[in-house]
Amino acid sequence: MQQYYLLDPWSIIEKDFDPQHHEISESVFSIGNGYMGQRANFEEKYSGASLQGSYMAGVYYPDKTRVGWWKNGYPEYFAKVLNSTNWVAIDVVIDGQTLDLSTCKVRDFTRELSMKEGILRRSFVAVLDDNKEVRVESVRFVSIVTKEIGAIRYVVTPLNFDATITLTPALNGNVMNRDSNHGEQFWDSVTASNNTKETFITMMTKKLDFYVCSAMQCDIYLDDNFQTLEPEITTLDDSVQKSFTIATQHNQSVTLIKYVANVTSRDHAITELTRVAVQHVNEAKATGFSTLMQEQINAWETKWQDSDIVIEGDIAAQQAIRFAIFQLNQTYTGDDERLNIGPKGFTGEKYGGSTYWDTEAYCLPFYLSTADQKIARNLLIYRYRHLDKARENARKLGYTKGALYPMVTMNGEECHNEWEITFEEIHRNGAIAYAIYNYVNYTGDTSYLGEYGLEVLVEISRFWAQRVSFSQAKQKYVMLGVTGPNEYENNVNNNWYTNRMATWTMAYTIQAIDQVQKENPTRLAQIHAQLSLADEEFKHWKEIIQNMYFPVDEERQVFLQQDGFLDKELIAVKDLPQEDLPLNQHWSWDRILRSCYIKQADVLQGLFFLGDQYDLDTKRRNFDFYEPLTVHESSLSPCVHSILACELGYNETAYKMYLRTARLDLDNYNNDTEDGCHITSMAGTWMSVVYGFGGLRIHDGQLVLNPSVPKEWASLSFTVMFRGARLFVQMKGQNITVKNESSMTTWLKIKEQVCELQGFSTIELA
Amino acid sequence: MQQYYLLDPWSIIEKDFDPQHHEISESVFSIGNGYMGQRANFEEKYSGASLQGSYMAGVYYPDKTRVGWWKNGYPEYFAKVLNSTNWVAIDVVIDGQTLDLSTCKVRDFTRELSMKEGILRRSFVAVLDDNKEVRVESVRFVSIVTKEIGAIRYVVTPLNFDATITLTPALNGNVMNRDSNHGEQFWDSVTASNNTKETFITMMTKKLDFYVCSAMQCDIYLDDNFQTLEPEITTLDDSVQKSFTIATQHNQSVTLIKYVANVTSRDHAITELTRVAVQHVNEAKATGFSTLMQEQINAWETKWQDSDIVIEGDIAAQQAIRFAIFQLNQTYTGDDERLNIGPKGFTGEKYGGSTYWDTEAYCLPFYLSTADQKIARNLLIYRYRHLDKARENARKLGYTKGALYPMVTMNGEECHNEWEITFEEIHRNGAIAYAIYNYVNYTGDTSYLGEYGLEVLVEISRFWAQRVSFSQAKQKYVMLGVTGPNEYENNVNNNWYTNRMATWTMAYTIQAIDQVQKENPTRLAQIHAQLSLADEEFKHWKEIIQNMYFPVDEERQVFLQQDGFLDKELIAVKDLPQEDLPLNQHWSWDRILRSCYIKQADVLQGLFFLGDQYDLDTKRRNFDFYEPLTVHESSLSPCVHSILACELGYNETAYKMYLRTARLDLDNYNNDTEDGCHITSMAGTWMSVVYGFGGLRIHDGQLVLNPSVPKEWASLSFTVMFRGARLFVQMKGQNITVKNESSMTTWLKIKEQVCELQGFSTIELA
Repeated sequence: MQQYYLLDPWSIIEKDFDPQHHEISESVFSIGNGYMGQRANFEEKYSGASLQGSYMAGVYYPDKTRVGWWKNGYPEYFAKVLNSTNWVAIDVVIDGQTLDLSTCKVRDFTRELSMKEGILRRSFVAVLDDNKEVRVESVRFVSIVTKEIGAIRYVVTPLNFDATITLTPALNGNVMNRDSNHGEQFWDSVTASNNTKETFITMMTKKLDFYVCSAMQCDIYLDDNFQTLEPEITTLDDSVQKSFTIATQHNQSVTLIKYVANVTSRDHAITELTRVAVQHVNEAKATGFSTLMQEQINAWETKWQDSDIVIEGDIAAQQAIRFAIFQLNQTYTGDDERLNIGPKGFTGEKYGGSTYWDTEAYCLPFYLSTADQKIARNLLIYRYRHLDKARENARKLGYTKGALYPMVTMNGEECHNEWEITFEEIHRNGAIAYAIYNYVNYTGDTSYLGEYGLEVLVEISRFWAQRVSFSQAKQKYVMLGVTGPNEYENNVNNNWYTNRMATWTMAYTIQAIDQVQKENPTRLAQIHAQLSLADEEFKHWKEIIQNMYFPVDEERQVFLQQDGFLDKELIAVKDLPQEDLPLNQHWSWDRILRSCYIKQADVLQGLFFLGDQYDLDTKRRNFDFYEPLTVHESSLSPCVHSILACELGYNETAYKMYLRTARLDLDNYNNDTEDGCHITSMAGTWMSVVYGFGGLRIHDGQLVLNPSVPKEWASLSFTVMFRGARLFVQMKGQNITVKNESSMTTWLKIKEQVCELQGFSTIELA
Repeated sequence: MQQYYLLDPWSIIEKDFDPQHHEISESVFSIGNGYMGQRANFEEKYSGASLQGSYMAGVYYPDKTRVGWWKNGYPEYFAKVLNSTNWVAIDVVIDGQTLDLSTCKVRDFTRELSMKEGILRRSFVAVLDDNKEVRVESVRFVSIVTKEIGAIRYVVTPLNFDATITLTPALNGNVMNRDSNHGEQFWDSVTASNNTKETFITMMTKKLDFYVCSAMQCDIYLDDNFQTLEPEITTLDDSVQKSFTIATQHNQSVTLIKYVANVTSRDHAITELTRVAVQHVNEAKATGFSTLMQEQINAWETKWQDSDIVIEGDIAAQQAIRFAIFQLNQTYTGDDERLNIGPKGFTGEKYGGSTYWDTEAYCLPFYLSTADQKIARNLLIYRYRHLDKARENARKLGYTKGALYPMVTMNGEECHNEWEITFEEIHRNGAIAYAIYNYVNYTGDTSYLGEYGLEVLVEISRFWAQRVSFSQAKQKYVMLGVTGPNEYENNVNNNWYTNRMATWTMAYTIQAIDQVQKENPTRLAQIHAQLSLADEEFKHWKEIIQNMYFPVDEERQVFLQQDGFLDKELIAVKDLPQEDLPLNQHWSWDRILRSCYIKQADVLQGLFFLGDQYDLDTKRRNFDFYEPLTVHESSLSPCVHSILACELGYNETAYKMYLRTARLDLDNYNNDTEDGCHITSMAGTWMSVVYGFGGLRIHDGQLVLNPSVPKEWASLSFTVMFRGARLFVQMKGQNITVKNESSMTTWLKIKEQVCELQGFSTIELA
């Protein structure tokens, strides 16, 4: 862990260029708009270590699975987020010398991501051969107003010499994925055009036939004067470029504005692609860089109004939580229900940009609280659209009914190929059911059940009903051979969390059926017919609910993570040789498996999800038992512990856990940020602030707040959307102020006290 | 299952050529001599499907591991048995047309492997363009007299035309492994020479620097007349060939004799390789084909005298058991203690030709009974030589003491990379300890303990002592996270077999220490010092032995395969939909894992190994419980069930189980013989005959025989070597005759009756 970037409430700032840190910075300074994402690769040529990454949301590649030993049921491919046409490239040649920060001296380097504005800036002075000094300033953004548009302003100023400068903006489709399983190129070129009127290139994926067309327009200025230059044009199958050469005097600036539009066949007919791309980029050019940039700044201002969190008195925490919010908003906007949230968003190749249970278990609350409810709704509909594939998946694994959602997916099909995860981490099905409850509970939008939710719930319940088996020995239903959220156990029996989420799903499904029956009996009748629902089925579910086996330690009165957990040697993490941590880097897999150490919250995850069903003493006993055994080697773990610790009044532990999640990427805590940022765990960070320190819950349709602001913070403020209301919450020590910024009257429960908060009114409690 | 080959007591015979069956036949008709192995690839060009395979024992390649998701502790490479220089090739061109059985009509095709003689013959008539008919007859063997030598006699006779025939014998180092993980070529060429005096080629592996030099000499005859022809010579970096062109009249035969010597840097200095190879091949040529062949026939006759089994009244069984014995003798001769027995021997690439626990658990008894005891001893010394690597392996996995032998190995290092096998199938350590006991018990050679065995036993016991842990809940020692012999369970706790073999090893080690103390206290003192043995250590072992936990079903009074086994749904295999079998082709892995179905004997394996420690009732209860749940989807399973069934008087089951193992490859029972023959399971077949139907055991230094010859057989006869004696045993129904063919007096226990059998005497019991 290191603090490498400057502390600042609204920006991430890198001073001085360290090539060793460059790939990490490429991740951290990534920009995106939910439609495309761009790592902070330099515009100019860079021969040092760099992970090139230009990603178009939803454009993926089914890379042939790589496996040591094939097992029946493995998927044929692993979907990869695709490194797509490099649209940021601007080669720079000064008096015949190529600008390359890997080979020249660099001073006054600053890279700054303005989270407030959604803009990435960079400036430096490069010292070239013969001591020629040149200042470069670049400004870049991908628009959240017109999602197809990316724009760059690139300014070169020779400082101590008169220069001939050649700037070569390009679109380059000749790109690779670093994580390609078999070293394949994933793209074929389709068309390229490059002339005075238009410059574009269209690439197509070798499988699945995604087309991406990128179009470019450029303007050149000498100081502030627009230049009409005849560029030298190079057109290849898979790249197009224009070279502008211009003579400058020292201290005279050459400015290149590069507008790019990226459009894909996901949104347009293939035959339309070129026209749409060219139209977009021409419009952008007509609007002009300054106006586009101002629109961007305004749009981000609006976003921040809805989702900002202010932490006074702790600038590191302030920066970190804004970084989390910024990245989440960059990654998913909810505009496209076919999209979802990859664990690394569009900041790297890792995890293939695919969808994991992270979305339902960690991300949903953020979008529920900070955006219109249709955003969260679209996250749910994503799974509804995949229901048929989840049914297929269940059939493939031998189930005659029901649906098993995949552990990792791009289009609803399973991508992952470790049996202990692919086939056994079925708790994901529970999280997907829980998200429906979570959404309905938060928004009160019970119509969702009839429209989409109930079908999913029924099919998941059917899966559980088949996945359990009856143990003659125990005279109970058991669930054998699963992997719980704690992936440091594989193929265990009766994982408490999974068993619990299974019965919970069945119970909630029955409740949801009643709800739809009440509100929309016609729709229920439809669903009944369509899914061939039968009363015996519900009876069977109830029978399972009543007779499910849950492992328990009678003596300690804690829920046991799984059968046999007490046979392990229970030695607290703090009593391990500390050089053994993290265990996954020092212990062989079998040693981890037979140890008691917990990668991420498991029983505690259940106690968080189903928090209203367990009293504080139960939570305390389980927390006291499991927390000392948890190594938090998943970035998704500390947030849950932090939230529970807040609830239990373990303020110090809560803060310690929060610190482990808050600056994970900014401080490269896990030494892996070069692969991309941990986007979904940022949602966990957000939860640990709002659900943890803010104590937000929804109970019986009421928003609950139970503040426990860390003593290190002077105040904590955040805005939440709740059932049409917009509430600004400020907490200072034990004081809490809630301002209703909407006209909607809302009932709140603050520190056990129920209050009515009328439109545009404020309440204060001490 | 299909009976494709003709039934014959001494030969495997294929009539008519079926290209679909060719790769299977290439496996079945493999020839070898423990030093090299050769699949039955055609000499002439063949453009149809074929798995080329020329293997040199001990010459392997560390192919870079392929893995989906890397886990800490995985080995970097998987050793591959190397497809080496193709030395059988003889291209044939007749009147300009290349002979290729894939493209011409073939009639009167016969391929015959004479197991009696160790010779492979093939003859056919090919119908070429213009209806030209040509007869081809080839005879091939690899010598068990001079291991470096392979020889081929290849005769071409145009039947209905006068022909110009070109025969091109070659040595071709440009070969691949089909199972190469990353499509790599594994060989570099070193030197090649090709002139009238000598023809050779030397290849070197790209890693580990194994050198293989192959030298060739050829003679040509027209009918019986030796021809002096000037061949056309082609010499490339990686191949050498000589083309002989000769004109024949119809019905006139052209005969090519091809002598090859293959030598490797495993046996000779690199600088000597060429000289040795050329000398060998020149000597072979001087000896002549007929003499070499006669020597081969004589040598095999001697082998058969020691190891033959005669089954009267069941020709299919007779053929099958001889095939097993033949292949075992072809695979391992015990001459080279650096070698071992790969599950597929030298008949294919599968399993990499590496060493598994198969050797100790299944193969050792065959070599103990049919050969000089130094052969079996060398199999044990192989593991002794790997002790340091096994220690390293244990350190790598976090053990401060002791040794963990690898699951799969070529040179003592672990090659396998599935965590559930690599790290968890630690029962292999038990089998390696058991083999020491088995050898000493059979041979009475207790000196082996002091010389080699004890060190291995101590280090394995030390491993077990660390691998167990103390369960506070059970107040017993437990063993968590293992995979037993039944690989259809992974990561289970307290696998009965593994726990049992662990305590057994520790107990036997203590006993072995006493033995060495008695026989050779000086040596024991040495070992004591060398291994820093301490009394507390033995105390700890005894403490574990006394307090080890063994899962038991109290109600049924059976040992439980592992914790929680009774939570499974126990449905007999016969009650499954039969189209679901084999499960590994129809069920996903998780479904298999949580089912009760047993891939191969597990508890029963233990009851076989430690048969003298359990009474018949215990064996019966466990057999009755587990047999109905066993799917025998490992080729190593039915033999153990068959042996126990014999002991329990379950004659029908015993015979049924025997049939599943006996003709596995001949009838391609598992549909995978094209990958190679199941060599190690052939040792199981042998055991099911001699230990099963013959009822052979060694109790207290006495050879025990308890015949239960299947009613389908008129008689069963076999020879066993036992402590210097050579006993010919014949069983007919309840009659048993034992003939001592040596001068050594031996005590026997036949059907519970103890008899003294003096040298060269015979005993008969009814």
